[in-house]
This record gives sequence, structure tokens and C-alpha cells, in this order.
Amino acid sequence: MEDSFNYIELFETYKGLLTDKQREIFSMHLLLDLSLSEISEEKGITRQNVSDTIKNVKGKLSEYESTLKIKYKNDRILEAVSKIPNEEIREQIKDIIGK
Amino acid sequence: MEDSFNYIELFETYKGLLTDKQREIFSMHLLLDLSLSEISEEKGITRQNVSDTIKNVKGKLSEYESTLKIKYKNDRILEAVSKIPNEEIREQIKDIIGK
Repeated sequence: MEDSFNYIELFETYKGLLTDKQREIFSMHLLLDLSLSEISEEKGITRQNVSDTIKNVKGKLSEYESTLKIKYKNDRILEAVSKIPNEEIREQIKDIIGK
Repeated sequence: MEDSFNYIELFETYKGLLTDKQREIFSMHLLLDLSLSEISEEKGITRQNVSDTIKNVKGKLSEYESTLKIKYKNDRILEAVSKIPNEEIREQIKDIIGK
């Protein structure tokens, strides 16, 4: 669950770098919680192809994060921001980050 | 100049997504300010190849920014952060962003 949650956040951060097919299959799997067989049937592709795509996307998301560290940096910014007494500025920064 | 400056910031932000060759040629051009001919001679590749690589990298950097908007968001965060009276938190956030 922790693992899925982490991938959901990474997906939201880096989905713009994925192809349409990768984005669609990964969101069916992770956000809609469909099984490999259900996605395979829905998309008319093999179960193996679905499985490979999901594995490939997980690899790419981890690679993007280890290269760009957007999620890591955003988490650290949010932690620092939580100490700001001024609520308006705090909310403004959370809004920019998308939290 | 404004244009080069913008690419330098985008390059610092997204260079991890480029190949070694792209990174090397682009930094020779933009950071070391070498001419296409000088890079061509130094790397033993044609001037056209250098020119194509630089054009290609500029396209990629613009594409990454229009997809992920890291630089845009960081600039907005820094603007909001500049209003925080607490210098320690301000510096902490600038440090995370890398400014």
C-alpha cells in the first residue's frame, strides 16, 4: 500500500513524461485498481503486454525521481513551510506545489 | 542574452534527463561559450552535428519545462518565500530549491 501510494505521487508528478499508452494503462492499474486481466480485456492487448508496461512505467517513475528529485524536494519544502506562522503564504506555497 | 540565461537555468534543472553527449556539447556551448567550430574540432564531430545537438537539446529543455514546470513553480515559490520574515526558513527553502 505504501508502495502504491508512493507510485501514485510519482505518477502525478511525472506523468507528463510518459506516453499516452503508459499513462492510460498505469492509471487503470493504480488509480482505478483494475486487474491485469481486466486491463488486457479492456484495451485488447495481452496480459503480458499490460504487465510489461506497468513494470516499465514503475522503472521510469523511479528513474525520473532519482534524477530530478521533485517529490523529495517538494516534501522537504512542505516540511519547512509548515513552520511558517503566516497561513496565507503557507497556503500559497502548498498551492504552487499542488498539495 | 535573456534567452541564454533561460536555457542555462533550464539546463541546470533538467540536465539529468539528457544523454552524456547532449550534456557535454550543450555545456561547452552555453556554459563555456565555445563556438560551433571549436566544439566540432574538440569533439571530432561535424559542425552540423554540433548544431543539431544544440537545437535538439533546446527543444527538449523547453518541452520538459512546459510539461513539468519545475522552473516556473520554483520561481513562484521563491517569490512567495521572499515575504517570509523568518530568515532561517527562507534560507532553508532557497537551499532545497538550489538558489
